[in-house]
Amino acid sequence: MRVIEEAISQNCKVLPGDVLKIDHFLNHQIDVSLISKGCEEFLEVFGDKEVNKILTVESSGIGIACLAAMHFGCPVLYAKKLFGKNSDDKLYSASCYSYTKGIEYNISVSAKYLTPDDRVLIIDDFLAGGNALKALIRLCEQAGAHVVGCGTVVEKAYQGGGDAVRAMGYQVHSLARIASMSPEDGIKFC
Amino acid sequence: MRVIEEAISQNCKVLPGDVLKIDHFLNHQIDVSLISKGCEEFLEVFGDKEVNKILTVESSGIGIACLAAMHFGCPVLYAKKLFGKNSDDKLYSASCYSYTKGIEYNISVSAKYLTPDDRVLIIDDFLAGGNALKALIRLCEQAGAHVVGCGTVVEKAYQGGGDAVRAMGYQVHSLARIASMSPEDGIKFC
Repeated sequence: MRVIEEAISQNCKVLPGDVLKIDHFLNHQIDVSLISKGCEEFLEVFGDKEVNKILTVESSGIGIACLAAMHFGCPVLYAKKLFGKNSDDKLYSASCYSYTKGIEYNISVSAKYLTPDDRVLIIDDFLAGGNALKALIRLCEQAGAHVVGCGTVVEKAYQGGGDAVRAMGYQVHSLARIASMSPEDGIKFC
Repeated sequence: MRVIEEAISQNCKVLPGDVLKIDHFLNHQIDVSLISKGCEEFLEVFGDKEVNKILTVESSGIGIACLAAMHFGCPVLYAKKLFGKNSDDKLYSASCYSYTKGIEYNISVSAKYLTPDDRVLIIDDFLAGGNALKALIRLCEQAGAHVVGCGTVVEKAYQGGGDAVRAMGYQVHSLARIASMSPEDGIKFC
């Protein structure tokens, strides 16, 4: 069994309302050794794609993106929800619906840091409806950057977001793909 | 000259309004190799303190905290500004004023992940007025966790926040300490 699936099997609970409690090693407390080990899989899958930038979105994607980027030897760019007074003039922006928080918001990157020269691997923690990935892809389209693929830690495959992004022609690789989960029956992987 | 000070000297501009443009390698795009190299200094300073947790605050602290944590071999815990529907019942919270954004906000951690057993290194990207560090220290006080020290990437020493935290009895180590800066005269380190 793969390292992240094993950690989920051993340490995660499913709560009512389709909630996977994973905040002890992924999205509140981060087990950096475990996540870094898991990220080696991204290098196996995308290592020959000449990735020169990893793109993610704040907040919960940033740590994973940095740990993945150490394997690829490239910088991370993270899309922001708010730009402060230090912001640049030209931004690329896309709207994104957060399933967890129940709100629509904009994410943006400075145009200086995403260009047609970039070969981008998009990284995020969770993939459910696919809205964050689609918004990050739109930022790359605006910049003319090439998306080589998407990597996520946990994919709720039964929600269809990953397959929707695959149907758009992008390679999506998830470190754990959940086929179904419930408090009663636990977690089943694809 | 130290690695982060050298990078700032070579690549950063000072804009009017006391703004250091550092978002090409620290807080929008992240040069993970450079920041990881800089974080070795935290290990030199705090490596004998039996650190078992690194605490930071979303968003811009997370990447640096994860890169630092790889050197310490411990997990990261990041304080959140909003807890979603996956939140736990018991939180520790503290209010914090953001100089950059001009707003007051609350930061919180789940009580499960910060305990009297923890020996905490607090990490953040910028140290100016010291409000974020003080709020993170208050979270540790609520939990009864031991703060072994604070590490920041860039300290605007002339704003006094670092010295205020030192006066509280905490060791603060910054990878670059700026004595003064202006668009006309550039950047001078301590």
